[in-house]
Amino acid sequence: MSKSTIADVARLAKVSASSVSNVLNDRSNRMRPDTKERIQHVIEQLGYTPNLAARQLKTGHAPIIGLIVPSVANPFYGIFARLIEKAALTGGYQVLLGNSERDPARERRYAEELWGYGVRGIIFGSSLTQFTHLESLIKKGLHVVAFDRPTQQDDKVIIDSISVDNVQATRLTTKHLLALGHHRIGFVSGPIRTVSRLDRLEGYRGSLQDANLEIDQQLVWQGETSNFGDTAAVELGRQGAHDLLSKPKPATAIIAINDMYAFGVYAGARDLGLKVPDDVSVTGVDDITLTEVVEPPLTTVQQPLRDITRLAVERLINRLHDTCSHPPGHQTLPPKLIVRKSTARYQKS
Amino acid sequence: MSKSTIADVARLAKVSASSVSNVLNDRSNRMRPDTKERIQHVIEQLGYTPNLAARQLKTGHAPIIGLIVPSVANPFYGIFARLIEKAALTGGYQVLLGNSERDPARERRYAEELWGYGVRGIIFGSSLTQFTHLESLIKKGLHVVAFDRPTQQDDKVIIDSISVDNVQATRLTTKHLLALGHHRIGFVSGPIRTVSRLDRLEGYRGSLQDANLEIDQQLVWQGETSNFGDTAAVELGRQGAHDLLSKPKPATAIIAINDMYAFGVYAGARDLGLKVPDDVSVTGVDDITLTEVVEPPLTTVQQPLRDITRLAVERLINRLHDTCSHPPGHQTLPPKLIVRKSTARYQKS
Repeated sequence: MSKSTIADVARLAKVSASSVSNVLNDRSNRMRPDTKERIQHVIEQLGYTPNLAARQLKTGHAPIIGLIVPSVANPFYGIFARLIEKAALTGGYQVLLGNSERDPARERRYAEELWGYGVRGIIFGSSLTQFTHLESLIKKGLHVVAFDRPTQQDDKVIIDSISVDNVQATRLTTKHLLALGHHRIGFVSGPIRTVSRLDRLEGYRGSLQDANLEIDQQLVWQGETSNFGDTAAVELGRQGAHDLLSKPKPATAIIAINDMYAFGVYAGARDLGLKVPDDVSVTGVDDITLTEVVEPPLTTVQQPLRDITRLAVERLINRLHDTCSHPPGHQTLPPKLIVRKSTARYQKS
Repeated sequence: MSKSTIADVARLAKVSASSVSNVLNDRSNRMRPDTKERIQHVIEQLGYTPNLAARQLKTGHAPIIGLIVPSVANPFYGIFARLIEKAALTGGYQVLLGNSERDPARERRYAEELWGYGVRGIIFGSSLTQFTHLESLIKKGLHVVAFDRPTQQDDKVIIDSISVDNVQATRLTTKHLLALGHHRIGFVSGPIRTVSRLDRLEGYRGSLQDANLEIDQQLVWQGETSNFGDTAAVELGRQGAHDLLSKPKPATAIIAINDMYAFGVYAGARDLGLKVPDDVSVTGVDDITLTEVVEPPLTTVQQPLRDITRLAVERLINRLHDTCSHPPGHQTLPPKLIVRKSTARYQKS
């Protein structure tokens, strides 16, 4: 199957190759309408499509942004990926998506392959606590914008990052539960491998300390799994609820690391014949689409995802075009508590 | 930032470029270990990464599979994308993902851009009723495997496709509801633009006809939306439930086009003070992760997604490598009814 070239188009349309290029790149406003029409006609006839691989070799980078998330099987990252793509398309970029399952080796391999395709910018949807596995690529010129990861003290490479304030997120839910009279508040999470999860644990701990409550390690449940693809989230939430709700002195409220875990906590409570919120209050983080329609609707913390994704893409594109004068750094957006029906006043039984 | 070339590596390691290439491509088993080590050392030192864009120009196609879905914001497509990627990685391919929102113009633009990058194979996660918008690319040599789309009688281009039997899917749920004594069975869907949705409507209609029941058009609810990105699914399900459950002779059971719509139907029933399944039975299609943990757990139809995605990727890769001797055609896999707690015997009130 031979592929038409820009020269074929030029020859048949009896114009120069640069005229064809002008039409292809929307720079034809000063061209005679009949010339433009003739060129478009030939392009159509030949079924000519520009050879972007060639163009990429010339400019040295491809109009593609890489996006690496733990797993789009988690509805939160599905929506995140969707919004990143929307912002990228607005800026003239496509998105190449990879699911890393929070594995540094996979993140690195993805980043290297993307680099090989001429991709010079990658957004990370969830960031590991260390970025050392990407250091050499970043030093070569890879631009990285991390979601969910403030700069860490011992970072050797400073990258751009933007996230909701995750400490604040669980501070909001913990304080909300404390105000409702709960003292035995549990925390349910999967493996804590990312900065965002560390921060959420910190927000929970900090709020309890502020209220002069001792932290009962027995109420901090961290599930183990060999599956970091987030399909285990619901199941882990369920297991966590089983554990925290069947102790001699059970939790009266549970803070889940995110909404999917919270849905699992609902199921776990049900398994034990307990009602949310009458017997146990539950909160999530993220505010994914389903929080409103589950029964009871979930009290959670909303991330300003539209703003976060737009800012992340803008920052990355500005870096790629070298039009960003800020030094790399972290930007934090405030979370918002959404009180629904899964939390209620503590009833002494 | 100057980029090292394969020639730089060869010069410093004092070997030929083809030896370097052999190491890069895992063809070094006949090489002397110390030579291999020297080459690897230089590759490491220079931070050399192979220029895949150049390689792509040479071979004419990139080791990337395109994947176009309506929207990964729908958890079903999140999982679908995840499984497609898993199968693709096993076959040595990456996945470039686009969300088309079921818009033929966007599908075409994506396909053209992917073609421009050297991508020669695309999987469609949900197929429009017509494939004419892709005809010219397919004629040029683009390989397409469609999910959810049996070949249509008037197709001009025959493509590979694989799907669950969608007619059978809603036949299973409709028959299940009929067996429970329901006669006023409603159908709730968004805009029907895809073959899979047409088929699901057909399965519902056919089963009612087989049972000698007249089809009451008032019970077939098709929501309108300008948003085809699937974030409206839950909201549309809710609206459909409001409509079908507040008629003078309301539906006693509702077949939702998929699980997300079914969750919306749950919420709509709740808004009206009705209980699932006591007042209304509800079924979905897909069996996404959350069907087990919503209250009540949803009766739905499972698609054999692991098999479907694996077969789709294998077929596509075989086409790309020209090792497939079958003519293009459709393969159908059987759906499986999963009865949970959202359906119950019709109680005459």
